[in-house]
Amino acid sequence: MAVLNSIVNGELSKIISIQDRGFNYGDGLFETIALVNQQPVFWNEHYQRLLKGCEVLGIDCPAEQKLKGDIEKLIHLSRNINTAVAKIMVTRGNSERGYQYNDNLVPNVIVSLSAYPSYPSSYWEEGVKVKLCETRLSSQQQLAGIKHLNRLEQVLARNEWQDEYQEGLMANAAGNIIEAVISNVFIIKDNIVQTPLIINAGVNGIMRNIVLKLCKANGIMAVEDKISLEQVLAADEVFLTNSIIGIWPVKHINSQAYILGLITKNIMQFLIEDYSVDYATFSI
Amino acid sequence: MAVLNSIVNGELSKIISIQDRGFNYGDGLFETIALVNQQPVFWNEHYQRLLKGCEVLGIDCPAEQKLKGDIEKLIHLSRNINTAVAKIMVTRGNSERGYQYNDNLVPNVIVSLSAYPSYPSSYWEEGVKVKLCETRLSSQQQLAGIKHLNRLEQVLARNEWQDEYQEGLMANAAGNIIEAVISNVFIIKDNIVQTPLIINAGVNGIMRNIVLKLCKANGIMAVEDKISLEQVLAADEVFLTNSIIGIWPVKHINSQAYILGLITKNIMQFLIEDYSVDYATFSI
Repeated sequence: MAVLNSIVNGELSKIISIQDRGFNYGDGLFETIALVNQQPVFWNEHYQRLLKGCEVLGIDCPAEQKLKGDIEKLIHLSRNINTAVAKIMVTRGNSERGYQYNDNLVPNVIVSLSAYPSYPSSYWEEGVKVKLCETRLSSQQQLAGIKHLNRLEQVLARNEWQDEYQEGLMANAAGNIIEAVISNVFIIKDNIVQTPLIINAGVNGIMRNIVLKLCKANGIMAVEDKISLEQVLAADEVFLTNSIIGIWPVKHINSQAYILGLITKNIMQFLIEDYSVDYATFSI
Repeated sequence: MAVLNSIVNGELSKIISIQDRGFNYGDGLFETIALVNQQPVFWNEHYQRLLKGCEVLGIDCPAEQKLKGDIEKLIHLSRNINTAVAKIMVTRGNSERGYQYNDNLVPNVIVSLSAYPSYPSSYWEEGVKVKLCETRLSSQQQLAGIKHLNRLEQVLARNEWQDEYQEGLMANAAGNIIEAVISNVFIIKDNIVQTPLIINAGVNGIMRNIVLKLCKANGIMAVEDKISLEQVLAADEVFLTNSIIGIWPVKHINSQAYILGLITKNIMQFLIEDYSVDYATFSI
C-alpha cells in the first residue's frame, strides 16, 4: 500500500542515510500496527514486542510517547485518516562500514502511514487459499520471535505465487510448519486449538497471542507445540492471524480443503466482542 | 571506515528512500572490493558473484560498465585515491509495503568508497587471534553462497567481542564450522588444505576461491568439505581469507594456539606472486 506520510527521526521525511545499519545489514526491527478510529490497536502489545526486539539486538528503544506522537502527527497530516496501517522501524543507526558498532550510536526511527489494505470480505466469511511454500524458514534461536529486518525468506516465499493464493505456509528444514508469510497459523484437531512454537524461527505475532488469550478466557483448549505438515493437512480447521487481517479462516492449503468450522467462527466472534475490532469491516 | 563519497543510482548522494526494499527487508546484495592502484581487484569474480546473487533473488543486475564507471567517478572525486574499499549495493528497488514485488521494479544501485582499513602488519606476519562465536549461522540452502543483505547473524557475532580478537569463527547449529564473521576459513591437516563447503550457509568468498585455485595450480591438495569444530582445533595450520585482508594466518582460536606453518606461508607467497597484490603492504 502506498505510503501516505512518514516521519524519520522526528521530521517529515522519506529518506534515510545509506550508512543506516538497517539498510546495510537489516540491523533493526519493525512493527506493523492497525490504526482504527485513529487509535493504534494493541499498542501495548506492539510496543512490548519492539522493546523485546531492541533488548535482543542491544538497541535503545525509542520512548513510547515519542512513537505515539509521531503516529498522531501522521494521522493529522493524512487528513485525520480514520483507518490506516502504521509501520514503525527502529534501526541501530548510522555507522561506518563493518559489522561492529559503538554503543553510542543513535537509532534511526521511521514511522510511516499507509492505506489499509483492501481485501474481499470473502476472506473472512469463506476463508482463503494458501500455498505450501517451498522456501523454508531457517532456524536461529537468538532471532526467533522478534520482528527484525532480515526478511529475505519472506520475500522469496511471497514471490512463489502471484494472486492465485492469499497466503503461503512456511515449514522449517525438518518439515515442521512454523508460520505463514505475513501471518501466524493455527490448526484445530479434535476441538484442540494448536499453534506452532516460536522458539527457533518465526515471529511472535501479536494477534497470535491475542487468540491464545481468547481461547483461554473462553474455555477453549489451546496449546503451542511442534506441528508437522501432516498434522496441518489432517486438521479439522485451520486459520491465520495477524495484526492487520485479524483472523482469516483457511479453506484450502494446496489441494487440501478445510471447512470453516464452529471453533474458528467462535474465536472470530470473541475477537470482535472482546476487543471491539471487526477487521472484516475494512474489506472491500 | 568512513565513507569518502557515494553514488546512488548514478548521482552523487548519501541517501536512499525509506521505501527501498533493501532497507525494509534486506532484499538485495552487496560486494566489498579492494581498490589497489585505482583498480578494483578481482573485479570479474566480484561481478560474477553479484550476477549470481541477482539471479537467485530475481533482481536485474546493473551493467558491469555502469558499476565500473561509478567506481572511477568516485576515485576521481576522492582526489584520485590509490587504495580504498569500494562497496556496491544492489537492492530490488522501492516498493509499497509488503513482501510481494512487481517485476517492473527498478533496482537501487549504491556505490561508495571508504578508506582502506588499517591493520597492524603483525596480522599477516604473526597471525590473528580468533574467537569461537556463540552466535550460530542458520542453514538456508537458497541463500547460501550469495552476499545478500540479511546480516544480523554477523552483527550479533561481531559484537561478541571488542578488540581482544581480530575475527570470530562461526559454526552452524550442528557444530560444523562454516566461516568467520568477515572472512572464510581454511585449515591444514597432514598437508591437506580444507575449507568448509558453502552449500547451506556462508558466503562464497572471492579470496576463498582464489586460494583454492592457487592450491590447485601449485600442487597443494585442497578440498571443500564438512569441517567440525574438533577438526579445526586439531588442525596444524589455520588461516582466514577475504577480499580486503587477503590471507591472515590464525595464531589462536580461543585458547588453542597454531603455528604459522609452511603451507600457509607458501599460499600467501603464491597470492603475491600470481596476482601482484600484497595486502600486507596496506598495513600500518
